[in-house]
Formats: sequence, structure tokens, C-alpha cells
Amino acid sequence: MTRIAILGATGYTALELIKILLRHPEAEIVAATSRQEGNPPVAMVHPSLNRRVDLNLEDLTPQEVAARAECVFSCLPHGASASVIPALLEAGCRVVDFSADYRLNDPEVFARWYGEKHHDPQRLGKVVYGLPELFREQIIGAPLVANPGCYPTSVILALAPLLKAGLIEPEGIIVDAKSGVSGAGRTLKLTTHYPECNESVSAYNVGRHRHTPEIDQILTAVAGTKVEVIFTPHLVPMDRGILTTTYSRPTREVGEDEILEVLREFYADEPFVRVIDHLPGTKDTMGTNYCDITARVVRGRVITISCLDNLVKGASGAAVQNFNLMYGYAETTAL
Amino acid sequence: MTRIAILGATGYTALELIKILLRHPEAEIVAATSRQEGNPPVAMVHPSLNRRVDLNLEDLTPQEVAARAECVFSCLPHGASASVIPALLEAGCRVVDFSADYRLNDPEVFARWYGEKHHDPQRLGKVVYGLPELFREQIIGAPLVANPGCYPTSVILALAPLLKAGLIEPEGIIVDAKSGVSGAGRTLKLTTHYPECNESVSAYNVGRHRHTPEIDQILTAVAGTKVEVIFTPHLVPMDRGILTTTYSRPTREVGEDEILEVLREFYADEPFVRVIDHLPGTKDTMGTNYCDITARVVRGRVITISCLDNLVKGASGAAVQNFNLMYGYAETTAL
Amino acid sequence: MTRIAILGATGYTALELIKILLRHPEAEIVAATSRQEGNPPVAMVHPSLNRRVDLNLEDLTPQEVAARAECVFSCLPHGASASVIPALLEAGCRVVDFSADYRLNDPEVFARWYGEKHHDPQRLGKVVYGLPELFREQIIGAPLVANPGCYPTSVILALAPLLKAGLIEPEGIIVDAKSGVSGAGRTLKLTTHYPECNESVSAYNVGRHRHTPEIDQILTAVAGTKVEVIFTPHLVPMDRGILTTTYSRPTREVGEDEILEVLREFYADEPFVRVIDHLPGTKDTMGTNYCDITARVVRGRVITISCLDNLVKGASGAAVQNFNLMYGYAETTAL
Amino acid sequence: MTRIAILGATGYTALELIKILLRHPEAEIVAATSRQEGNPPVAMVHPSLNRRVDLNLEDLTPQEVAARAECVFSCLPHGASASVIPALLEAGCRVVDFSADYRLNDPEVFARWYGEKHHDPQRLGKVVYGLPELFREQIIGAPLVANPGCYPTSVILALAPLLKAGLIEPEGIIVDAKSGVSGAGRTLKLTTHYPECNESVSAYNVGRHRHTPEIDQILTAVAGTKVEVIFTPHLVPMDRGILTTTYSRPTREVGEDEILEVLREFYADEPFVRVIDHLPGTKDTMGTNYCDITARVVRGRVITISCLDNLVKGASGAAVQNFNLMYGYAETTAL
Repeated sequence: MTRIAILGATGYTALELIKILLRHPEAEIVAATSRQEGNPPVAMVHPSLNRRVDLNLEDLTPQEVAARAECVFSCLPHGASASVIPALLEAGCRVVDFSADYRLNDPEVFARWYGEKHHDPQRLGKVVYGLPELFREQIIGAPLVANPGCYPTSVILALAPLLKAGLIEPEGIIVDAKSGVSGAGRTLKLTTHYPECNESVSAYNVGRHRHTPEIDQILTAVAGTKVEVIFTPHLVPMDRGILTTTYSRPTREVGEDEILEVLREFYADEPFVRVIDHLPGTKDTMGTNYCDITARVVRGRVITISCLDNLVKGASGAAVQNFNLMYGYAETTAL
Repeated sequence: MTRIAILGATGYTALELIKILLRHPEAEIVAATSRQEGNPPVAMVHPSLNRRVDLNLEDLTPQEVAARAECVFSCLPHGASASVIPALLEAGCRVVDFSADYRLNDPEVFARWYGEKHHDPQRLGKVVYGLPELFREQIIGAPLVANPGCYPTSVILALAPLLKAGLIEPEGIIVDAKSGVSGAGRTLKLTTHYPECNESVSAYNVGRHRHTPEIDQILTAVAGTKVEVIFTPHLVPMDRGILTTTYSRPTREVGEDEILEVLREFYADEPFVRVIDHLPGTKDTMGTNYCDITARVVRGRVITISCLDNLVKGASGAAVQNFNLMYGYAETTAL
Repeated sequence: MTRIAILGATGYTALELIKILLRHPEAEIVAATSRQEGNPPVAMVHPSLNRRVDLNLEDLTPQEVAARAECVFSCLPHGASASVIPALLEAGCRVVDFSADYRLNDPEVFARWYGEKHHDPQRLGKVVYGLPELFREQIIGAPLVANPGCYPTSVILALAPLLKAGLIEPEGIIVDAKSGVSGAGRTLKLTTHYPECNESVSAYNVGRHRHTPEIDQILTAVAGTKVEVIFTPHLVPMDRGILTTTYSRPTREVGEDEILEVLREFYADEPFVRVIDHLPGTKDTMGTNYCDITARVVRGRVITISCLDNLVKGASGAAVQNFNLMYGYAETTAL
Repeated sequence: MTRIAILGATGYTALELIKILLRHPEAEIVAATSRQEGNPPVAMVHPSLNRRVDLNLEDLTPQEVAARAECVFSCLPHGASASVIPALLEAGCRVVDFSADYRLNDPEVFARWYGEKHHDPQRLGKVVYGLPELFREQIIGAPLVANPGCYPTSVILALAPLLKAGLIEPEGIIVDAKSGVSGAGRTLKLTTHYPECNESVSAYNVGRHRHTPEIDQILTAVAGTKVEVIFTPHLVPMDRGILTTTYSRPTREVGEDEILEVLREFYADEPFVRVIDHLPGTKDTMGTNYCDITARVVRGRVITISCLDNLVKGASGAAVQNFNLMYGYAETTAL
């Protein structure tokens, strides 16, 4: 049994995390933090948790958190996360960080994309990127895991095997991704006000979405040569789900079967990646920790199509998968 | 005043067409056909037309249609359209055809993509493609206009000015399009059954969507060199709207401002194309005949983003725009 | 041609109003107000109005408004409306008020339901309630029209003929109404944040929705005896539309046909009320100024089902219908 | 461990059932039937089950089913269910029936509402209605359990305690219910075609929905006097969820607190009924086996508002709850 604290427990990833942990036989949630005044019950902020969680939101210091919990899931926004994680680690906690704070290796890159100096720059480059399909071994022993972004997971899982096999050119990869609205979080914005985004599709943050350097960094490492994707995210009127379509040039003539075979072999032993022949819909993965991937070759281009639930494999499910690895529980527990 | 017949009046494009024509001071709908048994009132099949249309669906021969109407809008499916249009033309009608039957110039290409022989092959190559922004002059005098597909309109309007200006490479253009469900028509299918497609995004017909050769043909004509796009349509859970994102390589170093300027100049006098700086959502064009277009340059690629209402500018609005041109009414009448 | 000013032009009813007025041959929008800083173009706040409206939002005094416009549509919230309307009337403007400020006759009732003193109490009781189906004659000459609430219109149109005919008991009428999200306005709230209200139905403001006294007042006047409805509004995940189901006891044994006949006769000459036999969906009225009504008798209760578009017949369409009456234009112009 | 067969495994309730049973440590699915040709894998019909279920659909006789399974969940439609259940029982299986075939006690009532003679009339009246909150003891030993309808569960759980306590009049109870589209099943119909029902609300089957006699029968039994509800179901554009609003007259003056207290006491020990103070949304119960209930008193009427997930507590979750009771597993297992 592991005692768990959740920082920043009022958002959607925290809610999904709590639901997953409630099914986990070895996890006990002992604290949930928020700056919300008056220490309301968690179930007041998340009515679906009524009678399922008997905890109040508290505004705790890292030391108070560490006094109660062994493992901390930080659902704090970037910046805030790196402000408390050093103290938590020092106090002996192990941490899964949902924010972008420890995903990038280079503080300069962080500063450029996030518009602020990093709070804990000397730790960058030493934190494992929590994608078990690529970094399982390092996750197992890690004190701190940087949980991947939702878009990057859908992109990297589709492209890494093909780049590693040298089947596609690392230059000029197009990534066209479509996400449900929960990906934008629970903070009120006009763009996610129901009558604005319902019955509408739009692109946003074209050329400047912050998941870009994260995708670049991991794919560059995998390919062994610089990768800079052209990444365009789109907002789609649905609660959850990401579908990512990528377009790349093969390094030699290649057929669909070969591409699919490479993917299938790469993920042969993976519990949560399903390489499929048919074209998936995000609903096939809704509420699950699966990422579904397929590929096509059209007019000399390799197209991959991958999908996942942004709140599960794209966030809280991945976090629990990481937690399971860190603590030696069966990797699929509660997932 | 022009007397109008609508063939195949039970679908969504016919419904939208009727709504637009009801606002048209110079159009009188005199017949609506369908093979539906029992000649039900149009308003029984389209309850929103209650008290607005006092017509019954009839199963009429081309001769019977021609006896009543001057202008025919054919909302029949491909194949069926080309089976009746020759007789209508012969009887003196002018026709706007919503189907794909007269969009392609080459019967071989038609046969390859539509899986059947063309019914009226000798007419192909002589029918104007009803995109006023490119072919206004030919539309004006035409007896038969091939109304463009919804996806092609969104693609061609975004790319034609850039290809014509020689600003982007004609090779390897990626077209990633997202459409609402009405684009799939009113025929019942599992993929458009509400609980299947709601809260889900998926790609479909990858590499084999029938709008591909239509896009190729027009862009090739515009560019003066062969264009073969890599076209991937996606189904998005909303009623109407198409958002199309294209990715191409510039022929020389080029900035966003220059791209936008080229677009702006190209469409300076167009009543229904809005070149904008901001990123549009399909809702901005919902229920209107506008196509909104913007562009970005990201990491050396030109990205265009265009959107329209698939039932209006992508179908029935365009048809009425063509009708206005054919009959000498102000082009924007009822739109 | 009438010069029009729109107060509070940033919300959804103002947007819909502008779209309708753009089709109106006798209306010219000369001012649009808002406290928004920097006087942005209207089309910046409403991107769908790009190229359609060439006006900037301005923060104008009633006198400045009156200097430009003859007719004022006030889309201001309650309280704010009554703060400026007296000055507008004094300056010679005629006004259609979208707020609740002039709908109730009794300042006490207003204070009780709206939680604040009325700003212009002595005018209450002298302002016509802008429901043409009941008060057409008074609207025609009115300097100020109180445009009805969206729910009340759907309720009153269904019940007034039956109460007037003495067919149903005025006591204990149940009104169960379902509304799309635009009814809640454009102000950001957690309850209308997309991932909160999408894929969910809920009741809200049970027993204390502010449209209650308005329904009571009009139905009481119609029935000639006190009516106090039990009114429960529900929020439904869609942009627009209200469907209202009412349950009442007949005063004597009565059949469906008789009920429908009474409704049909009552609305025989009304351009925007459709009494129908089938069960309507809100989509049948979407984007139109129609209210569809039908009735059933089930186990000795009279059930009425009515629906409309809350932004059109429930707000801006009704306002233009009132405007047409006030200025002597054909009542259906632009609708 | 119990060996389970699922009859009629292609629909939504079967899919949800399979997902729940996959989490059940004591359930093993050994057969899934369908008349689908070619014995496709279950995962071909339900892509979300890829890699999670390794079974093919088969067209099996009751005897073949009984040879493999101990417990049978019949997701067959009414009529079909009663055609095979007698043979299954005879062969020693225990059965949870999702259809309406064994819910009513009186074959005459069945024939009147379902328009056909019952296939197994002599068994009616002897089958337990599978609502554990009312009939837990009888379920435990039952060979056959009639799983309740989705609407009836939401209605009965809200009203039974109040009728039992004599707090509300049994006459004239109004039941206004709103359901997501999955409740209409997976069979293609125009009314559940996406562009028809999306962005629309409508009432359907007013006065003749087949869940009516089921509600009447159980509430009559609970009240000890005849109850005939006025039941109006509505279709709401969302995948899943039912919200039911009831209106009744109290037998004496009564306050909200007292009503809520009666509900709270009645369900004090129930694991899946949450009596709450706030107004619930269906999303609070989505994907769970909970039914949330609250109450209000408005102008002398008692209003109850209850909600649940029609596929879980309204169907498959309830079925597993019944299964747990029948086989002596902890009642909340897998739920």
C-alpha cells in the first residue's frame, strides 16, 4: 500500500487520477491540495466523487505533504510544480509531475516556449520522461517522473518506431492533431465556453503550441538526428480524446504492411498500445489507457493515425502506469 | 422570376437549398422530386419547412420536370444525376448538378474513383466547374454547372492563389480536412448513428476519398503543372462545417504577411471569401456562404486554414450563387 | 428606413439581432454600445460578422445614442436597462428592451425575484409585454416594448389559448422546460464551461427561476384568475432551442382533437405559431422565428409540447417582430 | 468464478456489460451470441474491446449456451428473450434478462403495451424485479431476474420511499424524463441519425412508452394502492444519462428537509443510491452505478430529481449488481 498526495486536485486530470486510484488496491489517497478557501470536501468540487472520496482540499506546504504521503502526483500548472517539487524530493517523496516543468532537458528551451525562467534548472536533463514504452527501465527507479503531455504521447508513440527503424525522413514531419475540450483544462475561457466551441472546429496555437519542443526532444533522441515537427493542434467539440494524423516521407519505397509490421513488432509486448488495421475513432479508447495506432501509405507519404483518451493515456492513466512501475506493482493495475 | 425544380429533395443539401431559395425574390420552387411513395408533402419529410413550402414530393420524368421548370437543381447521387441530366438539357432546362457526375473531365478518372462507367461520358470536359471565384465567366452562360464538392471548395479556395502565384510547390501538398456529420448525408449508416460518432473523431476514406481527383484536377489547371494532393478527411461530432488545414513547401523564402497579401489581393472583389488574420472556427461561417481563409508559416512550411459551412458554401449556397450568375441576378441574392 | 442602436452588443442575443437586422431592408444599424475598452470593431467580438458589419463598439450616453438612432434595442442586463431607458424615451427614442426590467407590473414582485429595487418603478404596469400573439395592438403604438423572456414565450403560447378557453385548470400547472446553453449568456461560468455541461442534463434554479413571475403574470391576465405555475428549467447540451412540456388538468373531459382545434383556431392568423400534430424537436425551429406547438391527453392530463429557438422567437426574432409592428413594416420582414 | 454467456452481444448494453465483467474477478465470459453471419470476433463489432476480449460471436442454441455457461445475461430484445429463457432455465442456467419480457406480472398488460402475445405467460408474476434497493432478498435466490428498464429505475428509486411513507398522493404523478441517445439502442433509425437528433430535444412516445406499465406496477406494489403515472420521455443530444423530474402532491404540508430525510433514511445502507442536497447533472453519475436523488418543494408540490447512467445503473451495472447478489459475491464487485 502506498500513501498518495495529489497536488492541485480541482482540475480534470486530478479528477480522472482520483477515479483511477480508487480502483487501485495498493493506493491510498491521503491528501489533496488546493488553494481553494475553506477546505471544502473534494466531492464538493467534483460531485461525481460523492461518497467515493472522504477527503477535504487543503492548502499544505511540501513538508506537510511529505509528512503524510510517500508518493506525490502534482497536477499543478507549470511553474508552480517546479516550485514545490524540489522540497518534496528532499523530504523523501517520489513524484509524478503532470506539468511540463521537468519534461525538457534545456532550461533555455523551456524559457523560450514557456516565457519564464525555470525554477529548478539544474535538475533538467536528469529527469526521466514518463513514457514507459520508451523509458520503462529508467522510470522504475526514478524519484521524479515527468509525465508526458497528451499530444506528445499520441505523436511519439506513432512515430518513434518508424524513426528508429529509419523508415521515415526526420525532416518535415507534419503533425495534425485534434483534441477534445477537456485538454484545455477547467479554467474558464471564452474559447471553451460552451456556445463558443460547441459545433465548431478550429486550429489554435499554430506554430507555437508548447508541446512542440517536447515532441522534438524525444523524437530527436529516438531518431539520433534533429527532428522538428510542424505541429498544428485543433479543438474539437467533444469532452475527451485526441486523434493525431502525421504525414512523413519514407526513406525508401515502403508499403503499408511493412509499416504496420514495424509498429506491431515494436509494441508486441506493450500492454497499452494497440496496432490495428482499421481506422480508429477516439471513442475506441475513451476511458481506457490504450493508444490505438494504424498507418497508411498514400501517394508516397506515410500517414500514421493514432488516438487516445487525453485524460487517461494522455495524463492520469499514464501517471498511474508510471506509479505502478516506480513502486513495483503490476504495470496494468487499475488501468 | 425563375421556375425551379429540385431533384432528390429528401436530403440535407436539398433542405438547405429550399431554405435559401425561400429567401430569394426571383426564385419559385415548382417541383420537388423523390421516389418516396405516396407523394408526401415536402414538409412531412422536412418538418422545419412546415407552413413554408406547399409542395408534394413527386416521382417525375425529366420531361415532366422540364414542362414545369426552367432551372433544375439536381441533388441526386452520382450516377443517378447523369442519367437524367442529358434529357433535361435537351428539353431546354438549365441545370446545377450537386453530384460529382460532371466535375471530372476524364471518364477514366471517374470510373477509377467511382467504380462505375460514366453515363454521359462525351459531355465531360465541356462542363464548367461551378466555383465562381475561379470560373465566374464560364458559369454565366452555362447550361449545366457542376457544383463543387464541399471539401474541394475549402481546399481549392485556400491553395489556388498560392499555386497560381508560384509561391508553393505543387508536389507533396498535405490536406487534412475535418467535417461535420451532415456531409455524410441523410442515409442511415452505423458510422453516423449518434452514439457511434458523437464524442469521437476519426479519419475515414484515407487515400481514397472521391473528392481527391476533383481537387487534383482544378489545382493542376490552376498551377499549370500536375498536382496530386495527399488528402485525409476526418469526421467531427458536429452538424455542419468543414475546417481544412493544408501544408506545403514554399518555392522560396516567404513570410506570413506575403502569403496573406497574395490571398487578400486574389479575393479582393469576392463577396464570399474572407481572408482573415485570426484563426477561424467553422462556427464563424455557420449558416453563411462565406469561406474564411488564413495562413501561417511554420518552420518553413506554408499552412493554410480555411473553413466554410459544408451545406452552404460547400453545397447549396454555392449552387444558388451559381444560379444567380446563370440567370443574371445579383450574385449575393438570398445569400 | 429606421436608424437603430443596439445597447450591450457583445452577447448572443445582440449577435442574433444583428444577423436578422442585416436582412432587414428598412433597418440601419448606426450604433452598437459596450463598455469594452478601446472601441473594438463589432466583428472583432463577433468574428462571424466579419465584412458584414462596419461598426465599432462604443461606450455612449443615452443622449449620444438618441442623437443617432430612432429605435433602440437594449440587450443590457436587468437593472442596467432600466437605468438608461428613461433617458432614451425622454430623448424621443422608441425602445425594445430585452431585459426583464419592464416585464413585470409590480415593483414589489420585481424586487422579490431580482433581489434589488427597481430603477424606474413608476413606469411598471404601463409597458406592453411584447408578445404579438397576445398584445399586437398595444405594441403597434408603444414607445417601449418589454421583449418577453425565452421560457415565458414557449410557455405562454402553449397555455394561453387553453386557459382563455377555460379548458384547463389554472391551479397546479406543471411546466418542465429544457433549454440549450446559449440561454445562459456569454458570461463565463463553470456551469457553462464545455466539459462541465456537455454530455450532461441538469435542472437548475428549481422553484426560483426569474421567468416564473413573468409567466404567472401573463397567464393570470389571460385566465382572469390567479395562475402560479410550478416551473422547472433544465440545461441541455446544445447551442440553442427550448422545448417546454406542460401538464395540466382539464376542466372537463376533453380529447386531443379538441385541444388541438382550440390551439389551431387561436393561432389561425399568426405568422409564427405552427400548431402541429406530430411531436416537434427544437431543431425544427432552429434559426427561425417559429414556435411549434402540439398537445396530447394522457391519463386525464393535458400535455402541451412547444418549442422555439431561444435566440430567435425567444429573443431577437421576437424583438424584430415587435420592431416591425412598432414601425409599420410587414410583421414578418427579415424573419 | 462463474462462467457467463451473453446473448445478443452486439448492442450497447452488451458492450457495457462486457466492460464491467472484464473488471470482475469472479466472472469469466465464455460465450457471446449473435445472429451476425461469419462468427466475427466480438472486437470487430466493438472496436473498443480490441485486445480485451478474445471471443467470437456465435449463433448458439440455448442448449449449447447451457453447456458452457452457468449464468446467462440476455441482451436480446423483448419477445426474443422469452423465446429462449425457458430452455435456459430448464438446462440449469440462471438468467439476468435485460428485456421487458419478465418485468410485468400480467400477460394482458404485456400484450396491450407490447402489441404481441407473451411467449411464456405462466411464468409471469413469479419473476423477481431486479431492483436490489426494493427486492434484494428475492434476487439472492432467484433463478431468473428481470433487470429493470432504465427509466423505471430512475423513477422508482425517487418515488418509492415517498409513496411508502405516505408522503405523496399516488394519483396524478407527473414523470418528465430526459435520456441520452444510447437508450434508443444501436439499430439504425432516422430519429437517432446524428444530424437529426444532435442539437435538438424532443419528446417521444408520449403516453405510450412501454416503461409506463412497469413503473405503474412497482409503484402500485410499493404504495399499496393503484398508481398510474403520466410519463413523458424526452430525447437529449448526449450519449448516455437519464435525468428524471417528477411532480406530485404531498398528502400533508411537508418541507424539503423532511422529504430529503425520508429519502436519506430509506437509502442509508444502499451502496449505489446517493441522496444529495444539490441539483445533480447526469454527468455526475456517468460511467458509474450510482443513482443520485434530490428533492424540492415548490408551491406545494414535491419535485424529485434523479439521475443515473442508463447503460450502467439503468442496465448493465444493475445486471452485475443482481449477478453479484445471485452468486454471493460482494454486491459492489466491479461496480
